[in-house]
Amino acid sequence: MEQVQSQTVFSGPFVDVAMRRYRRADGSEVERQVIEHPGSVGIVAHDEAFVYLVRQPREAVGEDGLLEIPAGALDVAGESELECAKRELGEEVGLAAEHWSLLHEIYASPGFLDEKLTLFEATGLSPIQAESDAEEQIEIVRLPLAEVGSVLAEIRDAKTLVGLLLLLRLDGAAQRA
Amino acid sequence: MEQVQSQTVFSGPFVDVAMRRYRRADGSEVERQVIEHPGSVGIVAHDEAFVYLVRQPREAVGEDGLLEIPAGALDVAGESELECAKRELGEEVGLAAEHWSLLHEIYASPGFLDEKLTLFEATGLSPIQAESDAEEQIEIVRLPLAEVGSVLAEIRDAKTLVGLLLLLRLDGAAQRA
Repeated sequence: MEQVQSQTVFSGPFVDVAMRRYRRADGSEVERQVIEHPGSVGIVAHDEAFVYLVRQPREAVGEDGLLEIPAGALDVAGESELECAKRELGEEVGLAAEHWSLLHEIYASPGFLDEKLTLFEATGLSPIQAESDAEEQIEIVRLPLAEVGSVLAEIRDAKTLVGLLLLLRLDGAAQRA
Repeated sequence: MEQVQSQTVFSGPFVDVAMRRYRRADGSEVERQVIEHPGSVGIVAHDEAFVYLVRQPREAVGEDGLLEIPAGALDVAGESELECAKRELGEEVGLAAEHWSLLHEIYASPGFLDEKLTLFEATGLSPIQAESDAEEQIEIVRLPLAEVGSVLAEIRDAKTLVGLLLLLRLDGAAQRA
Protein backbone atom coordinates (compact mmCIF):
# COMPACT_ATOMS: atom_id res chain seq x y z
CA MET A 1 0.00 0.00 0.00
CA GLU A 2 0.98 3.63 -0.36
CA GLN A 3 0.19 6.49 2.01
CA VAL A 4 -1.14 9.33 -0.16
CA GLN A 5 -2.14 11.86 2.50
CA SER A 6 -1.74 12.51 6.22
CA GLN A 7 -3.16 15.35 8.30
CA THR A 8 -2.49 15.81 12.01
CA VAL A 9 -5.89 16.46 13.60
CA PHE A 10 -4.78 16.39 17.24
CA SER A 11 -1.41 16.89 18.86
CA GLY A 12 -0.89 15.87 22.48
CA PRO A 13 2.00 15.64 24.90
CA PHE A 14 2.45 11.93 24.24
CA VAL A 15 0.65 10.87 21.05
CA ASP A 16 -0.78 12.61 17.99
CA VAL A 17 -3.82 11.67 15.92
CA ALA A 18 -3.66 11.78 12.12
CA MET A 19 -6.24 11.22 9.42
CA ARG A 20 -4.49 9.37 6.63
CA ARG A 21 -5.43 8.17 3.15
CA TYR A 22 -3.85 5.06 1.68
CA ARG A 23 -3.96 3.63 -1.84
CA ARG A 24 -4.12 -0.15 -1.87
CA ALA A 25 -2.53 -2.43 -4.47
CA ASP A 26 -5.90 -2.76 -6.28
CA GLY A 27 -6.13 1.06 -6.64
CA SER A 28 -8.87 1.55 -4.05
CA GLU A 29 -8.35 4.19 -1.37
CA VAL A 30 -9.16 3.94 2.33
CA GLU A 31 -9.13 6.54 5.10
CA ARG A 32 -7.81 5.68 8.56
CA GLN A 33 -7.59 7.55 11.84
CA VAL A 34 -4.16 6.65 13.17
CA ILE A 35 -2.77 7.24 16.66
CA GLU A 36 0.89 8.15 16.18
CA HIS A 37 3.21 6.78 18.85
CA PRO A 38 7.03 6.92 18.92
CA GLY A 39 7.36 3.18 19.58
CA SER A 40 8.44 1.43 22.75
CA VAL A 41 10.61 -1.27 24.25
CA GLY A 42 10.11 -4.02 26.84
CA ILE A 43 12.76 -6.08 28.61
CA VAL A 44 12.60 -9.70 29.81
CA ALA A 45 15.50 -9.47 32.28
CA HIS A 46 16.36 -12.68 34.09
CA ASP A 47 19.10 -14.75 35.68
CA GLU A 48 19.05 -18.47 36.54
CA ALA A 49 16.59 -17.93 39.38
CA PHE A 50 14.47 -14.83 38.83
CA VAL A 51 12.81 -12.60 36.25
CA TYR A 52 12.64 -8.90 37.18
CA LEU A 53 9.24 -7.23 36.89
CA VAL A 54 7.68 -3.96 38.03
CA ARG A 55 4.34 -3.16 39.59
CA GLN A 56 3.00 0.34 38.98
CA PRO A 57 -0.23 2.34 38.83
CA ARG A 58 -1.72 2.49 35.33
CA GLU A 59 -4.38 5.16 35.57
CA ALA A 60 -5.55 4.81 31.93
CA VAL A 61 -6.90 1.31 32.63
CA GLY A 62 -7.90 1.93 36.27
CA GLU A 63 -5.24 -0.37 37.78
CA ASP A 64 -3.52 0.55 41.06
CA GLY A 65 -0.69 -1.92 40.55
CA LEU A 66 -0.24 -3.58 37.18
CA LEU A 67 2.49 -6.23 36.93
CA GLU A 68 4.69 -5.66 33.87
CA ILE A 69 8.13 -6.21 32.43
CA PRO A 70 10.32 -3.06 32.56
CA ALA A 71 9.43 -0.93 29.54
CA GLY A 72 9.33 2.56 28.14
CA ALA A 73 8.59 4.72 25.14
CA LEU A 74 11.17 5.85 22.56
CA ASP A 75 10.72 9.45 23.63
CA VAL A 76 14.38 10.57 23.63
CA ALA A 77 15.42 11.97 20.24
CA GLY A 78 18.00 9.86 18.44
CA GLU A 79 17.94 7.01 20.96
CA SER A 80 17.87 3.49 19.49
CA GLU A 81 15.60 0.71 20.77
CA LEU A 82 18.53 -1.01 22.49
CA GLU A 83 19.79 2.22 24.11
CA CYS A 84 16.28 2.93 25.35
CA ALA A 85 15.98 -0.61 26.76
CA LYS A 86 19.30 -0.27 28.61
CA ARG A 87 18.22 3.07 30.08
CA GLU A 88 14.80 1.76 31.16
CA LEU A 89 16.28 -1.36 32.78
CA GLY A 90 18.56 0.92 34.82
CA GLU A 91 15.86 3.45 35.73
CA GLU A 92 13.09 1.01 36.56
CA VAL A 93 14.86 -1.91 38.26
CA GLY A 94 18.43 -0.65 38.83
CA LEU A 95 20.08 -3.31 36.67
CA ALA A 96 22.57 -3.44 33.81
CA ALA A 97 22.81 -6.49 31.53
CA GLU A 98 25.85 -7.96 29.79
CA HIS A 99 23.91 -9.88 27.11
CA TRP A 100 21.06 -8.47 25.03
CA SER A 101 19.11 -10.30 22.34
CA LEU A 102 16.05 -9.38 20.30
CA LEU A 103 13.11 -11.49 21.48
CA HIS A 104 10.26 -10.25 19.27
CA GLU A 105 8.67 -7.17 17.70
CA ILE A 106 4.96 -6.66 18.24
CA TYR A 107 2.20 -4.21 17.35
CA ALA A 108 0.11 -3.26 20.38
CA SER A 109 -3.13 -2.60 18.45
CA PRO A 110 -2.45 -2.53 14.69
CA GLY A 111 -5.96 -1.51 13.60
CA PHE A 112 -5.49 2.12 14.60
CA LEU A 113 -2.27 2.55 16.64
CA ASP A 114 1.16 2.61 14.97
CA GLU A 115 3.01 1.64 18.17
CA LYS A 116 5.67 -1.00 17.54
CA LEU A 117 7.11 -2.56 20.66
CA THR A 118 10.55 -4.18 20.59
CA LEU A 119 11.05 -6.94 23.18
CA PHE A 120 14.55 -7.81 24.38
CA GLU A 121 15.88 -10.62 26.53
CA ALA A 122 18.56 -9.33 28.94
CA THR A 123 20.89 -11.62 30.91
CA GLY A 124 24.19 -11.32 32.76
CA LEU A 125 22.59 -8.86 35.20
CA SER A 126 24.38 -6.64 37.71
CA PRO A 127 23.08 -3.86 40.01
CA ILE A 128 23.74 -0.22 39.07
CA GLN A 129 22.86 3.22 40.43
CA ALA A 130 20.50 4.95 38.01
CA GLU A 131 18.32 8.04 37.98
CA SER A 132 14.63 7.28 38.35
CA ASP A 133 11.64 9.40 37.38
CA ALA A 134 10.20 10.91 40.58
CA GLU A 135 6.61 10.83 39.30
CA GLU A 136 6.74 7.10 38.62
CA GLN A 137 5.72 4.90 41.54
CA ILE A 138 7.45 1.65 40.71
CA GLU A 139 7.78 -1.40 42.91
CA ILE A 140 10.37 -3.95 41.77
CA VAL A 141 9.09 -7.55 41.79
CA ARG A 142 11.67 -10.34 41.70
CA LEU A 143 9.66 -13.31 40.46
CA PRO A 144 11.15 -16.84 40.77
CA LEU A 145 11.35 -18.44 37.31
CA ALA A 146 9.58 -21.52 38.71
CA GLU A 147 6.52 -19.34 39.48
CA VAL A 148 6.20 -17.67 36.06
CA GLY A 149 3.72 -20.28 34.79
CA SER A 150 1.43 -19.83 37.77
CA VAL A 151 1.29 -16.02 37.66
CA LEU A 152 0.37 -15.87 33.96
CA ALA A 153 -3.33 -15.89 34.82
CA GLU A 154 -2.83 -12.61 36.74
CA ILE A 155 -0.94 -10.82 33.92
CA ARG A 156 -3.09 -8.32 32.00
CA ASP A 157 -0.42 -6.39 30.11
CA ALA A 158 -0.07 -7.73 26.56
CA LYS A 159 3.68 -7.20 26.13
CA THR A 160 4.37 -8.80 29.52
CA LEU A 161 2.27 -11.84 28.67
CA VAL A 162 4.11 -12.21 25.33
CA GLY A 163 7.50 -11.78 27.02
CA LEU A 164 6.84 -14.31 29.78
CA LEU A 165 5.22 -16.87 27.45
CA LEU A 166 8.25 -16.62 25.12
CA LEU A 167 10.58 -16.98 28.12
CA LEU A 168 8.77 -20.17 29.17
CA ARG A 169 9.19 -21.56 25.65
CA LEU A 170 12.92 -20.72 25.62
CA ASP A 171 13.26 -22.23 29.09
CA GLY A 172 11.33 -25.35 28.05
CA ALA A 173 13.51 -25.73 24.94
CA ALA A 174 16.65 -25.35 27.07
CA GLN A 175 15.43 -28.02 29.50
CA ARG A 176 14.65 -30.43 26.64
CA ALA A 177 18.06 -29.85 25.00
CA MET B 1 -6.86 5.62 42.64
CA GLU B 2 -9.74 7.96 41.94
CA GLN B 3 -10.46 9.83 38.71
CA VAL B 4 -11.18 13.45 39.68
CA GLN B 5 -11.50 15.09 36.28
CA SER B 6 -11.81 14.15 32.60
CA GLN B 7 -12.02 16.44 29.59
CA THR B 8 -12.45 15.22 26.03
CA VAL B 9 -9.86 17.10 23.97
CA PHE B 10 -10.34 15.25 20.68
CA SER B 11 -13.23 13.22 19.32
CA GLY B 12 -12.70 10.98 16.31
CA PRO B 13 -14.72 8.41 14.37
CA PHE B 14 -13.08 5.54 16.25
CA VAL B 15 -11.34 6.78 19.41
CA ASP B 16 -11.43 9.89 21.59
CA VAL B 17 -8.63 11.55 23.53
CA ALA B 18 -9.21 12.76 27.09
CA MET B 19 -7.05 14.65 29.55
CA ARG B 20 -7.76 13.14 32.95
CA ARG B 21 -6.65 13.90 36.50
CA TYR B 22 -6.36 11.11 39.07
CA ARG B 23 -5.83 11.23 42.83
CA ARG B 24 -3.59 8.43 44.06
CA ALA B 25 -3.89 6.64 47.40
CA ASP B 26 -1.15 8.88 48.88
CA GLY B 27 -3.12 12.03 47.96
CA SER B 28 -0.86 13.10 45.08
CA GLU B 29 -2.49 13.95 41.76
CA VAL B 30 -1.30 13.03 38.27
CA GLU B 31 -2.49 14.08 34.82
CA ARG B 32 -2.75 11.57 31.99
CA GLN B 33 -3.64 11.81 28.32
CA VAL B 34 -5.83 8.78 27.70
CA ILE B 35 -6.93 7.33 24.37
CA GLU B 36 -10.51 6.14 24.91
CA HIS B 37 -11.37 2.93 23.08
CA PRO B 38 -14.59 0.87 23.36
CA GLY B 39 -12.67 -2.38 23.99
CA SER B 40 -12.28 -5.33 21.68
CA VAL B 41 -12.40 -9.11 21.36
CA GLY B 42 -10.18 -11.75 19.75
CA ILE B 43 -11.03 -15.37 19.03
CA VAL B 44 -8.76 -18.43 19.05
CA ALA B 45 -11.01 -20.69 16.95
CA HIS B 46 -9.74 -24.21 16.36
CA ASP B 47 -10.68 -27.82 15.83
CA GLU B 48 -8.47 -30.92 16.20
CA ALA B 49 -6.44 -30.05 13.13
CA PHE B 50 -6.50 -26.31 12.41
CA VAL B 51 -6.64 -22.84 13.95
CA TYR B 52 -8.48 -20.23 11.86
CA LEU B 53 -6.64 -16.97 11.26
CA VAL B 54 -7.07 -13.97 8.97
CA ARG B 55 -4.62 -12.00 6.90
CA GLN B 56 -5.53 -8.38 6.21
CA PRO B 57 -4.00 -4.99 5.37
CA ARG B 58 -3.22 -2.91 8.46
CA GLU B 59 -2.50 0.54 7.10
CA ALA B 60 -1.72 2.10 10.50
CA VAL B 61 1.42 -0.04 10.84
CA GLY B 62 2.26 -0.18 7.11
CA GLU B 63 1.51 -3.91 6.72
CA ASP B 64 -0.07 -5.25 3.51
CA GLY B 65 -1.06 -8.56 5.06
CA LEU B 66 -0.86 -8.97 8.83
CA LEU B 67 -1.65 -12.42 10.20
CA GLU B 68 -4.09 -12.24 13.13
CA ILE B 69 -6.74 -14.11 15.01
CA PRO B 70 -10.30 -12.99 14.09
CA ALA B 71 -11.07 -9.89 16.16
CA GLY B 72 -13.07 -6.71 16.34
CA ALA B 73 -14.00 -3.67 18.38
CA LEU B 74 -17.00 -3.42 20.71
CA ASP B 75 -18.54 -0.77 18.48
CA VAL B 76 -22.17 -1.96 18.49
CA ALA B 77 -24.16 -0.38 21.34
CA GLY B 78 -25.30 -2.86 23.98
CA GLU B 79 -23.39 -5.81 22.53
CA SER B 80 -21.50 -7.98 25.04
CA GLU B 81 -17.95 -9.24 24.50
CA LEU B 82 -19.24 -12.75 23.75
CA GLU B 83 -21.91 -11.52 21.31
CA CYS B 84 -19.28 -9.40 19.55
CA ALA B 85 -16.92 -12.39 19.33
CA LYS B 86 -19.66 -14.59 17.84
CA ARG B 87 -20.49 -11.91 15.26
CA GLU B 88 -16.83 -11.35 14.31
CA LEU B 89 -16.13 -15.08 13.95
CA GLY B 90 -19.07 -15.28 11.52
CA GLU B 91 -18.18 -12.13 9.57
CA GLU B 92 -14.46 -12.72 9.30
CA VAL B 93 -14.09 -16.48 8.82
CA GLY B 94 -17.68 -17.71 8.24
CA LEU B 95 -17.78 -19.94 11.30
CA ALA B 96 -20.04 -20.53 14.29
CA ALA B 97 -18.77 -22.26 17.44
CA GLU B 98 -20.62 -24.52 19.87
CA HIS B 99 -18.23 -24.03 22.81
CA TRP B 100 -16.88 -20.69 24.02
CA SER B 101 -14.53 -20.12 26.93
CA LEU B 102 -12.74 -17.05 28.26
CA LEU B 103 -9.02 -17.41 27.53
CA HIS B 104 -7.60 -14.15 28.92
CA GLU B 105 -8.18 -10.41 29.24
CA ILE B 106 -5.36 -8.11 28.19
CA TYR B 107 -4.56 -4.41 27.94
CA ALA B 108 -3.05 -3.48 24.56
CA SER B 109 -0.96 -0.55 25.83
CA PRO B 110 -1.94 0.33 29.41
CA GLY B 111 0.26 3.44 29.76
CA PHE B 112 -2.05 5.62 27.69
CA LEU B 113 -4.72 3.48 25.96
CA ASP B 114 -7.76 2.15 27.87
CA GLU B 115 -8.41 -0.66 25.35
CA LYS B 116 -9.19 -3.95 27.09
CA LEU B 117 -9.16 -6.97 24.80
CA THR B 118 -11.09 -10.11 25.74
CA LEU B 119 -9.70 -13.32 24.25
CA PHE B 120 -11.96 -16.33 23.76
CA GLU B 121 -11.28 -19.92 22.78
CA ALA B 122 -13.94 -21.21 20.37
CA THR B 123 -14.37 -24.89 19.49
CA GLY B 124 -17.06 -27.10 17.98
CA LEU B 125 -16.88 -25.13 14.73
CA SER B 126 -19.33 -25.23 11.83
CA PRO B 127 -19.59 -23.14 8.65
CA ILE B 128 -22.25 -20.43 8.41
CA GLN B 129 -23.32 -17.75 5.94
CA ALA B 130 -22.58 -14.33 7.40
CA GLU B 131 -22.53 -10.73 6.22
CA SER B 132 -19.03 -9.39 5.72
CA ASP B 133 -17.86 -5.78 5.66
CA ALA B 134 -17.18 -4.86 2.01
CA GLU B 135 -14.32 -2.49 2.88
CA GLU B 136 -12.41 -5.19 4.75
CA GLN B 137 -10.03 -7.25 2.60
CA ILE B 138 -9.74 -10.42 4.61
CA GLU B 139 -8.08 -13.65 3.55
CA ILE B 140 -8.91 -16.67 5.72
CA VAL B 141 -5.83 -18.69 6.73
CA ARG B 142 -6.40 -22.25 7.99
CA LEU B 143 -3.21 -22.98 9.91
CA PRO B 144 -2.43 -26.61 10.90
CA LEU B 145 -2.06 -26.84 14.69
CA ALA B 146 1.26 -28.64 14.18
CA GLU B 147 2.63 -25.52 12.45
CA VAL B 148 1.62 -22.96 15.10
CA GLY B 149 4.98 -23.14 16.87
CA SER B 150 6.93 -22.48 13.68
CA VAL B 151 4.88 -19.46 12.54
CA LEU B 152 5.18 -17.65 15.89
CA ALA B 153 8.34 -15.86 14.70
CA GLU B 154 6.27 -14.27 11.91
CA ILE B 155 3.44 -13.05 14.16
CA ARG B 156 3.61 -9.31 14.95
CA ASP B 157 0.14 -8.73 16.37
CA ALA B 158 0.25 -8.80 20.18
CA LYS B 159 -3.21 -10.34 20.80
CA THR B 160 -2.52 -13.07 18.20
CA LEU B 161 0.83 -13.93 19.77
CA VAL B 162 -0.82 -14.16 23.20
CA GLY B 163 -3.68 -16.29 21.83
CA LEU B 164 -1.44 -18.73 19.97
CA LEU B 165 1.08 -19.03 22.83
CA LEU B 166 -1.77 -19.79 25.25
CA LEU B 167 -3.19 -22.33 22.79
CA LEU B 168 0.20 -24.08 22.63
CA ARG B 169 0.27 -24.24 26.44
CA LEU B 170 -3.27 -25.69 26.57
CA ASP B 171 -2.35 -28.16 23.83
CA GLY B 172 0.88 -29.10 25.61
CA ALA B 173 -1.00 -29.62 28.87
CA ALA B 174 -3.57 -31.79 27.05
CA GLN B 175 -0.84 -33.92 25.51
CA ARG B 176 0.88 -34.40 28.87
CA ALA B 177 -2.42 -35.32 30.59
